[in-house]
Formats: sequence, structure tokens, C-alpha cells
Amino acid sequence: MTRSQLIALIKERKSFLCVGLDTDLTKIPAKFLETEDPIFEFNKAIIDATADYCVAYKPNLAFYECHGAKGWESLEKTIAYIGDTHFTIADAKRGDIGNTSSYYAKTFFEVLGCDSVTIAPYMGKDSVEPFLKFDGKWAILLALTSNEGAVDFQFQSIAPGSERLYEKVLKLSQSWGNTGNLMYVVGATRPEMLSSIRQIIPDHFLLVPGVGAQGGSLTEVCKYGLTPDVGLLINASRSIIYAGAQESNFETHVEKAAAELQSEMAQILTERGIC
Amino acid sequence: MTRSQLIALIKERKSFLCVGLDTDLTKIPAKFLETEDPIFEFNKAIIDATADYCVAYKPNLAFYECHGAKGWESLEKTIAYIGDTHFTIADAKRGDIGNTSSYYAKTFFEVLGCDSVTIAPYMGKDSVEPFLKFDGKWAILLALTSNEGAVDFQFQSIAPGSERLYEKVLKLSQSWGNTGNLMYVVGATRPEMLSSIRQIIPDHFLLVPGVGAQGGSLTEVCKYGLTPDVGLLINASRSIIYAGAQESNFETHVEKAAAELQSEMAQILTERGIC
Repeated sequence: MTRSQLIALIKERKSFLCVGLDTDLTKIPAKFLETEDPIFEFNKAIIDATADYCVAYKPNLAFYECHGAKGWESLEKTIAYIGDTHFTIADAKRGDIGNTSSYYAKTFFEVLGCDSVTIAPYMGKDSVEPFLKFDGKWAILLALTSNEGAVDFQFQSIAPGSERLYEKVLKLSQSWGNTGNLMYVVGATRPEMLSSIRQIIPDHFLLVPGVGAQGGSLTEVCKYGLTPDVGLLINASRSIIYAGAQESNFETHVEKAAAELQSEMAQILTERGIC
Repeated sequence: MTRSQLIALIKERKSFLCVGLDTDLTKIPAKFLETEDPIFEFNKAIIDATADYCVAYKPNLAFYECHGAKGWESLEKTIAYIGDTHFTIADAKRGDIGNTSSYYAKTFFEVLGCDSVTIAPYMGKDSVEPFLKFDGKWAILLALTSNEGAVDFQFQSIAPGSERLYEKVLKLSQSWGNTGNLMYVVGATRPEMLSSIRQIIPDHFLLVPGVGAQGGSLTEVCKYGLTPDVGLLINASRSIIYAGAQESNFETHVEKAAAELQSEMAQILTERGIC
């Protein structure tokens, strides 16, 4: 999916919501456990309940790999079921020497058919570039993550001066790709930093995890991160997919949780005159 | 496999060689392509030819994932075939928020049954710790990698002072684990840096890729990196597994390539009075 197609989709649905498919067999409603492929059947129900309210789905690879080959089959079926009506993000946090990264790019873009994959920047330019060579496909580079450990390295100041590592990542990587094939992960748990981040990358899309279960605020993120082209994909996982997991009509709770976030987003887009 | 078991294995075989299973269908001998599971059959032949000369095997996940669920099956069969006679390394370069890293740890240690997994440090402490909670299992943290892009971030100086990011990773992460559950990746293409690295981590095992096809020198790496407990696992992938791939008796070439490295290692271990 190209940048212009993604922006058109966001404006059409008045939503920049990404639903995270962190599908955990210990948390999904019991009725799915009786099916042949509980992960896929649960995802299918989630997708059916939320498709009108979101523009992207983000399966977290760890939750599929932990079931081995069977988990990969569930993932393949999920990506195929989503089809081309939504932007798909393989949240895989890959990154290796160039030759190896080429195989990861092939895996996620050609074999699985995802639109994008999350990448860890530690190994530098040649570990990221293979992901930037596919038309309409995206690398989503980790910049500032939403977890506690982000302070360990990402916040370290790079000498000389006081530029932080995540700022160095943002600056240096811009020359590797462009606003049509490179996004960044910036956690919602640190919205106040979005203001300075937008000075470095005014136009790139940001994938923002951490709204919902991790405590990030949609309003705060939009205040600092929204651009005239929207420029944000806000991810919510647990707060949507496990809404009402203990209830018999769990799909209604899931739909409600997604619809509420979409409604807030529509209001923000209107207030900002974007659509 | 515990640290003492690993050291005993190295002394018994007089080898600290790790064979990288970067199994690429475009490079393996044609005879395997006719089998039902070419990747596994090729790996089996490689393992049979090299088992006496090495102490570890390191499948590179990208080469398996690019075949989807079928690739994971080949990987599962390969790990099972290796059994407990060798140390197994899932070269996966994972790392995510704590909850997700727990699932990756479960995947590689419990589902696949590997002894260790490579981890990218960018997300900090809580992304690594879940891998340190399994008896006899190891996290192998990227410190200084063998690729060109290593200079982009790993070589950046952290203010104040001139400590580099990879040195910060080495120093800070030591408190997360110990010499019995934490190793580091240090590329053979920069052996002169091993001297200062050994001042920071005198006893930790290092996984050293880059000998062979990438041009690193075994002698140089041992000069600076070897410890009284050996402390090194030297990986060679392409230079062993594709030795003589065009020949009818390719197994003989593979065995010879592994035996030559083992012989050099045995000599170094004797010269240093280790065994």
C-alpha cells in the first residue's frame, strides 16, 4: 500500500486506528479453543468486528511463533483474510546483516504479503536497506519505544552535544528511505517527546503503540504528533481484542472498544480540519 | 546446556566451532531439491559431516521463515536432529517489550528446544530479562556486529566521555544476567577491539561471526578473545556449508572445511595450555 493509498483510507474511514493481533490462547474466549485453528478463528472474529473502524492490523509475531509451524499457518491465514482493505504490519522487530535482512524482507513482503514490518535499528544502514527496496512496502524502524527499558540505550546522549540515540536514529535513517517507505515506532507513553520528534521528521508516519493497556493518551499523542497528512497509526491491542473476553457476546464489546477509539479519532480529524 | 557442560564439550572435542545453518535453496546441491524437505535433508547431511568437529549449530531464522510454516517445520526437525550433543543457537535477533519477549523466550527455549537465542539490545533491560529466566538457557546479546552498518549506532560515543554504545551495552547488561546465561555477539571483522572488550567482560562467552566468508581471522580473534575457560564460539556458515556445493562428493568438502578449522582450534587450545 502506497502512502497516498494509506492517507486516502484513513480519510475515508475517519480513523487511524491499528488493531494489534496479540492473540494469546490463555486469554481468548473458550469457544475458540474448541476449533481446529483457535488463533485464526479468534482473529477472524476480531477482524469482522473491527474492520469498519480501523485502517491497519498488526499481528505480533511472538504470539504466532510460540506455536511453531502451526502458528505460522494461523498467521498466513490471518494476513490472507485481512486482504488489501487494510494496511498490514508484521510486528517482528527484525534486523540482521544485509544478506539476512533480504530474506526477512522477502518473508514478510512476498511470502506473507504484509505491507510493512517493524525493524530494530541497532545494526545500522545495511540491516535496514533491504526492507526499502519493495514498491508499496514499508520498514517501520524502532525509534523511541513504549517500554521501561527504552531509557537504557535510546535515551543515552550521543557525544558531542546532547542528541539522544533515538534522535540519532531518526536523523541518520532518513537518508536511507523516504516518507513513502519508512515509518517510525514512537511509543504513546512519552507523548511530550513527539513535539521534538516532529521537528526532526515532520512528515513521516509514526506507528504509536502504548495507547490503552499501556496507559498512553490518544489526545496527547495527536496534540503533538498529528500532521496535515495525519502521519499517525495508533495501535491498540489488548484493550480492544480482549474487551469482554469473559462475556458471551464478546464481539459486541470488541466492536464497541474499536468504535469508541474511531469516534474519538474522527472528532480529532474534524477539529483539525483534516477531513 | 550449562556453562560447565559447554566448556567440557569444547575441551572434549578440542573445538569451539559453531556451524551456521544459513540454508539457502538456491545454493544447496541439486540432489536435495528432489527430496520432500530439502532444507532438513541438507542440514542433516551437514550435521552428519561436521558433528565431530564442532560444538554448536546456529540456524539463521531468516532462511527458514522465508518458507513460511514449512520452513518452521524444517527448523523444528533440524533442532530435534541435533539433539543434546551440541549447543544450539537460534540466530533470531529478537527483542520486544517484556510481555512479548516472554513469548519469544518460550518459543525458542521450550517449543524449539534451543539452548540460546540472539537478542538485539535496543529496547533495553525488560526486553532481555525474559530470556534469562530459564535454567541452562542463554541470551546472546548483540554488542558489536560484523557488518558495515555497525558504525552507524554501535560506534557512537555516549556522553559524557567517549564510551561507545556497544561498550555501554556490555557494561549495563552485565547486571541483568551472569556468565552462565548471557553471551555477546562480537564480530570477527574487528578483532582488535576484542582486547578492550575483554577488559569489560573478562569471562563471558562471545559468539563471533564473520570468520570465513566475511573475512575475519581465527588467529586474531583468539589472540585477543580467548580466556582460560575458552570463552569463544567461532561461527562459520557459508565457508563450511557451501564448500564444494557443486561437487558430487560435497559432504567430503564440508567435512574437510570443518576439520581444518577444528584442527587450527585444537592447536590454539594446546598452545595456550587450555587442553
